[in-house]
Amino acid sequence: MKQILEAVRRQAPLVHSITNYVTVNDCANMLLACGASPIMADDIDEVEEITSLCQGLNLNIGTLNRNTIPAMLAAGKKANELNRPVVLDPVGAGASRLRTETALALLGEVRLTVLRGNISEIKTLALGSGTTKGVDADLADQVTETALDGAVRFAKDFARRSGAVIAITGAIDIVADGEKAYCIRNGHPMMGRVTGTGCQLSALTAAFLAANPGVPLEAAAAAVCAMGLCGELAHQRLGHLDGNAAYRNLILDAMYQLTPAQLEEGANYEVR
Amino acid sequence: MKQILEAVRRQAPLVHSITNYVTVNDCANMLLACGASPIMADDIDEVEEITSLCQGLNLNIGTLNRNTIPAMLAAGKKANELNRPVVLDPVGAGASRLRTETALALLGEVRLTVLRGNISEIKTLALGSGTTKGVDADLADQVTETALDGAVRFAKDFARRSGAVIAITGAIDIVADGEKAYCIRNGHPMMGRVTGTGCQLSALTAAFLAANPGVPLEAAAAAVCAMGLCGELAHQRLGHLDGNAAYRNLILDAMYQLTPAQLEEGANYEVR
Amino acid sequence: MKQILEAVRRQAPLVHSITNYVTVNDCANMLLACGASPIMADDIDEVEEITSLCQGLNLNIGTLNRNTIPAMLAAGKKANELNRPVVLDPVGAGASRLRTETALALLGEVRLTVLRGNISEIKTLALGSGTTKGVDADLADQVTETALDGAVRFAKDFARRSGAVIAITGAIDIVADGEKAYCIRNGHPMMGRVTGTGCQLSALTAAFLAANPGVPLEAAAAAVCAMGLCGELAHQRLGHLDGNAAYRNLILDAMYQLTPAQLEEGANYEVR
Repeated sequence: MKQILEAVRRQAPLVHSITNYVTVNDCANMLLACGASPIMADDIDEVEEITSLCQGLNLNIGTLNRNTIPAMLAAGKKANELNRPVVLDPVGAGASRLRTETALALLGEVRLTVLRGNISEIKTLALGSGTTKGVDADLADQVTETALDGAVRFAKDFARRSGAVIAITGAIDIVADGEKAYCIRNGHPMMGRVTGTGCQLSALTAAFLAANPGVPLEAAAAAVCAMGLCGELAHQRLGHLDGNAAYRNLILDAMYQLTPAQLEEGANYEVR
Repeated sequence: MKQILEAVRRQAPLVHSITNYVTVNDCANMLLACGASPIMADDIDEVEEITSLCQGLNLNIGTLNRNTIPAMLAAGKKANELNRPVVLDPVGAGASRLRTETALALLGEVRLTVLRGNISEIKTLALGSGTTKGVDADLADQVTETALDGAVRFAKDFARRSGAVIAITGAIDIVADGEKAYCIRNGHPMMGRVTGTGCQLSALTAAFLAANPGVPLEAAAAAVCAMGLCGELAHQRLGHLDGNAAYRNLILDAMYQLTPAQLEEGANYEVR
Repeated sequence: MKQILEAVRRQAPLVHSITNYVTVNDCANMLLACGASPIMADDIDEVEEITSLCQGLNLNIGTLNRNTIPAMLAAGKKANELNRPVVLDPVGAGASRLRTETALALLGEVRLTVLRGNISEIKTLALGSGTTKGVDADLADQVTETALDGAVRFAKDFARRSGAVIAITGAIDIVADGEKAYCIRNGHPMMGRVTGTGCQLSALTAAFLAANPGVPLEAAAAAVCAMGLCGELAHQRLGHLDGNAAYRNLILDAMYQLTPAQLEEGANYEVR
């Protein structure tokens, strides 16, 4: 994990994000916190050029609209052409036909490096159905210790079929390619009370991939561990009157201060 | 007031917001802080589905555009059809023809549960004229102790005519239906130096309504008291070097920590 | 410098921003922090009216799109007609043809009061070429002590040709009209790790211009000094676990607390 973060810090990759306007500022600051550099652009007339300038691409379908959908497709194809990593965060897939179809179109037309979402979103895309309740995972779907083996099998299978590393985040996170799955127990439940921690993780993942070509599984797992670890470190700093606004800031600050050695030591995962 | 907040915490209502991109992140975090769950979606191709998933709808016309206007109308009508509460925040009504007309169209075509704005915005909609200076209330319009009786009469009258609970926020807040008005003296003047405290209150109101069907006046009054009380509690935590950024965070944190008992005790209102 | 800030605090100018959705919330809070009042509006059907209400206009091409480009042109022309100051922040000019052409179109069709960007962006517009790497200045272009004289000459020349005050921000900031250049050594390198400090400065500049008609060079220089000084003051308050999120908040808070006397004393500039 250590070298993965070292590479991000050393290379300061430029990451293009086409992302929702709810959490875009946090995504930009998260990219800066980890040592990368953000650029946001979503007009069809410039996305290909911007993607070409960048070392990685982050697509996020929260607050998608008819203008940004073709822009995401065009940017994704350009990134493929240039062999740059692409992350897709299918926010709310299953919550509307537009989101499900857009995510499926991106999955079909763009070669994704990593697909990262909660279990409801990922299931929607894998099975063509789901029980997505808004943008949060449905309780019935959540990955618990008892359901872990089945979820790992599901993730590996979908990774094999899709060609993407599948990152399912929740109480236990699973990051899998067709052969190998990281089961990650970093993080804190309060992260769900801060808007955009998932979006920030997707942006972070794009940066980790960009600086570590050739090892997408390890880079994605390191990003998930790093985000979760920052959630833990930040939670320790919360005072008794603090809430989700303080927590949001402390998570970003933890990433800013995170050292490769800290990540190495704090990453809490097993491989299945 | 106590039970109103308890219901929000217990039910964690999902709230759909079509809102401006200036303060949308704060609205999402405010919804999470109070115990609700946010989803933002503004494309005409998905808003009806998203509204259908949700227990409440929050419409806010700051940074409206020709794509989001029909989306707001469609979402509002769908919420009406499903009997879900709808809040309208007519940001800047009176500042441009587009905003005034859009707010009037929403008022005409959607059955609003609560209309919440500053006195200039509400007057614009009630009287078809106003003296709106940008997005802040005009000084000449502000509700002071001496003008309170007249403002209460105005609010009740407009509530009767429009069928919506009217929430006019300012130095003294008025929340009225046709019969009864809460005059609320919570809050702190420095809240006006944080962008989006009004937008956050509108989102909060939608959550309070969603978790408390059948008592829109009480739910809206509780939301206004809660927001103002959080403004007071947050202000007490400000250090001598702190400014509006610290205050923004502390208000959200106060909402995260606010207990029903605290709200019951801290709510400062009279009924006229 | 003192009187410039005093005028902002006394007049509380209303500033219209058409700006990117990444940093718009910070721009609004920065305007409030300095004592001004923000309004954001980008639909072609209302921008002229909104500009007419305001004392200053701030145009920022980050996340521009085909709807906002004509809105920026229309707002700019209206501001010209009414003799209100206009700031252009050409975020990412040089990074895509769309951004370069849009910035050049604004430069050609709108009489700008101040053009503020990093050296790569400004060079792109002055010379029709550049080496922009995303939204940050290219290392090869950065203004260092040894390159300062050349950069000052370049800024004065471009100011003369364009009729705008040219503000080039970086390690050393240059604010120049055709005759006179302020070389400013306020600020802290860590400001580059917070998204949107440049955007915030552009919004701030519009407020300073709006409250100080007739002295655009002095007003722009004061804004640049104020922003840099707040970056310094904020940096002194950072704890050893703090990162870019804390810093973002502390910079805004420093502006909220900044006194005219502090600015007078802390402004670190020479005139060439």
